[in-house]
Parts: sequence; structure tokens; C-alpha cells
Amino acid sequence: MDATLTYRKATRADLRAIIFLLLQDELGKTRENLAAEIDQRYIDAFEKINTDPNQYLMVAELDRSVVGSCHLTIMPSLTFTGSTRMQIEAVRIHESYRRQKLGEQMLHEVIRYGKSQGASIIQLTTNKKRVEALKFYQRVGFESTHEGMKLYLD
Amino acid sequence: MDATLTYRKATRADLRAIIFLLLQDELGKTRENLAAEIDQRYIDAFEKINTDPNQYLMVAELDRSVVGSCHLTIMPSLTFTGSTRMQIEAVRIHESYRRQKLGEQMLHEVIRYGKSQGASIIQLTTNKKRVEALKFYQRVGFESTHEGMKLYLD
Repeated sequence: MDATLTYRKATRADLRAIIFLLLQDELGKTRENLAAEIDQRYIDAFEKINTDPNQYLMVAELDRSVVGSCHLTIMPSLTFTGSTRMQIEAVRIHESYRRQKLGEQMLHEVIRYGKSQGASIIQLTTNKKRVEALKFYQRVGFESTHEGMKLYLD
Repeated sequence: MDATLTYRKATRADLRAIIFLLLQDELGKTRENLAAEIDQRYIDAFEKINTDPNQYLMVAELDRSVVGSCHLTIMPSLTFTGSTRMQIEAVRIHESYRRQKLGEQMLHEVIRYGKSQGASIIQLTTNKKRVEALKFYQRVGFESTHEGMKLYLD
């Protein structure tokens, strides 16, 4: 039987564990940092997320240990006759727990949460370098109908 | 000399003009509606957007007439060491004013706004059916590094 994750909103005490998950990523390891003292920019970003009712930073736990995380944003929208969208960012599973279907479990919880918030479209982008991630999201039901475009500012 | 657009935050009085722009779109015409009485779902969505400091519904005008619109969402983020992202949705130019570089003008204003809000990543998705739109965003500086994935809920 598969292990069952539990889910909750992240607290300030989870920040180090979440940054650790971001760092474990093949792309993230070049753009994140985790020192004995947490970079103030992470703390500031966490506070903005934590105090905004449209943001939900989710952690997934096994035996009270954080093994996964993702960041959800509810976005009101005029299109599709005034629909609500939910954007998913920063989906991560601890490297020791991959290939055990925990990501699928977490994504099903994400979809359940989106429905509870009235979302009719759930959306995400995944870097084209992440070949496995694309297949993963397709298994969960996402379709890659769009180009995901980015502009990085200095 | 090119005509110069002016920009401002949309008000409730602009809602009919904005829905009209959404309807003029080849994909939008199948999913929007504009009756003598505006669908209450549009009004509800407008109010959510209008009262959320992270949402900016922009209209672009020529001689005080709305000829373009887009919807910007500021998203705090832990990734990239606590970066701020800005999402662009629903970019539209009135069909009578296309192919006159007004879209480029509006997008440059969008980028300026993103910088003023501290965004370091500006992102959007565009339907793969929109071949011209892809080229348009590339001209403005966006790169299609990601797959844009959607899950439509019932």
C-alpha cells in the first residue's frame, strides 16, 4: 500500500525545509541558496505569500516530516465569462521520496483545493528541459496546449 | 508617426468595452458573451480584480476610447531566491486597430509596470493555435522556454 501524505498550509517554521526542496531540483540548484541564516529575500517573500488570501503555500508531510511542497495562486479572471484560475508553481518532492507516486498524490490534493476555491482552470508551466515533469503532469490530466513564455528582467 | 496609447487602471465603466475586446478574439468568441445586461459573473470577477492590490486590469486608450486591454497579476514567489513574478493574461487589441504596433506599445508599458512592482520574471502562456501571437511575444522579448499546461475542471 502506498504511503499517504498529509497536507497543510506552510508556516514560517517550514521555510528552511521548503528552500531545501527547491535546492534539490536540477534547475533550482543554480538559483537558490540555503545558508545557516536564511536569506532575507526568502523571508520577505514568505510573508507576502502567507498574508495574501489568494496564495496557498502547501506542504505535504509523511510522519510530520515535510517531503513535498507547491505554491498555489488563485487568480480572478474576466475570460471564460468571469472564471477563476489557479496557477501552480514550484512543485517539489524530496529526492529521497521520488518515483513513489507521491507527486501524483499531491497533485490530486492540489486539484481538490482548486475546486474548493471555485477554480475552473488550473494552469502551470514546466521548463521544456524537464522531460519527465511533462509526462508527470500529463498523467495527472494536464494538456500542453500552450507555449509558456518568460521574460527575465535585470 | 505612430499613434500613442495612454494607459490606466480599468474601472467598472470599462467592463463592457473590455468584454467586447475579449469577444473579438478567435478563441474568445466561443467562450464569452455580451448581452444588453452584462453577465453577473463578469461583474463579480471585475470586483475581485478591482479590489485586489496584486491585480491590475489595464486599459489602453486612443482619444479616450478603449482600444486594448490586459490583465496583470503580481505573484510573490519563493523561487529564484524570493523573486516576484508577474503573470499576463487576456492581452487584446481592438480588431480595427491591429497591425499598427499598438500591441507592442502596450506590452512595453506592461513591462515598465512589472519593473515598477519589483517583478524579475514576467510570464504568460499563449495557445499553440495562436501562431501570430507567439511571434508577437518573441518580438517583445519573451522566450518560449516552457510548456504551458492547462487542466479544465467541470
